[in-house]
Amino acid sequence: MFTLYYARGTCALATHIALEEAGAPYKAILVDFGSQAQRTPEYLAINPKGRVPALVTESGTLTETPALLCFVAQRFPEADLAPLADPFALAQVQEFNSYLCSTVHVAHAHGRRGTRWADDPEAIEAMKRKVPSSMTECFELIERKFLKGPWVIGERYTICDPYLFTIGSWLEGDGVDTTKMPRVIEHRRRMLARPAVQKAVAAEGTQIP
Amino acid sequence: MFTLYYARGTCALATHIALEEAGAPYKAILVDFGSQAQRTPEYLAINPKGRVPALVTESGTLTETPALLCFVAQRFPEADLAPLADPFALAQVQEFNSYLCSTVHVAHAHGRRGTRWADDPEAIEAMKRKVPSSMTECFELIERKFLKGPWVIGERYTICDPYLFTIGSWLEGDGVDTTKMPRVIEHRRRMLARPAVQKAVAAEGTQIP
Repeated sequence: MFTLYYARGTCALATHIALEEAGAPYKAILVDFGSQAQRTPEYLAINPKGRVPALVTESGTLTETPALLCFVAQRFPEADLAPLADPFALAQVQEFNSYLCSTVHVAHAHGRRGTRWADDPEAIEAMKRKVPSSMTECFELIERKFLKGPWVIGERYTICDPYLFTIGSWLEGDGVDTTKMPRVIEHRRRMLARPAVQKAVAAEGTQIP
Repeated sequence: MFTLYYARGTCALATHIALEEAGAPYKAILVDFGSQAQRTPEYLAINPKGRVPALVTESGTLTETPALLCFVAQRFPEADLAPLADPFALAQVQEFNSYLCSTVHVAHAHGRRGTRWADDPEAIEAMKRKVPSSMTECFELIERKFLKGPWVIGERYTICDPYLFTIGSWLEGDGVDTTKMPRVIEHRRRMLARPAVQKAVAAEGTQIP
């Protein structure tokens, strides 16, 4: 039995969906960011980075969404969530997920977590102002180049899809005009038709635009 | 024959070292950031993100360091650069590399690429000022928790090591007091004793402190 630590509206939803897709045995525990529960000694003992997601497994605790997604795919191969045996195809999956974590999630984070990168309140406001344009730039590249359709890498559903769905659910809140991204929004609708997605979203009580 | 596109002093060095460690057939081509070669139509046709590294393979082009490192390990399994068959151990490798790309490299990038996240020149200066403390915070966690020694995950050399070495080579330039990180600096020295590391560093003409 795994334990997933998550918070609402965070990238933990991607791993939550993947665990559902895989039929993995797990329980999900909410870390209350409102009361700064991620900074308590108890939670820092689980994840010294003070962030979510963290997945406690039979072998130990894992963090970082791209690593967790690949772990779920490899640990439950019968769910067929990644092209595990093909180095190039697997690298394409990891390339997309790496772009999401290192560029797209980071662009979004400047709207809420600016204190990570500057102390000056005016600088933090300047970062917030740029989020709509930087997120638009990222998602225009996804819309035009990276999202093959119907799923991220093409005909096959993989661990890229819950991650795109999760970060894509932040677009409206980030002030992005999604009418210019019809393929991303179609992908969101396609995801919402999947029982695993419905179950994870409902369990978290996460709002999807 | 692969082609690696790199620039000096960038994270492309990690993939460069991994290709050498694997004994992969490749040539390395310098992308001259000084003349903004990464923004030319020719280079954007190779990598629409306008960044390095990009690796042209027999199957197509790949980008993003964690994906490239895992690709090299899986494509050249005889080099034994990752615990490919063990989902938990491989996830630990990917967890570390994901932390480097999404948190540590991003902290560093605020010193040079602030225009990605704000337009206001004062905000960009404020970001620069925070780089020494944010990089120190990341590397204190690496020093105390993540670097098991002698290699990142312990006794075994993996694709985590060239990536840590590469990002760790930026510390002095980022204003970090490395005398507080003796284990990270020992790791650097251990890396510099490897022929593959010496060869990639010399081929790029990259300066290691």
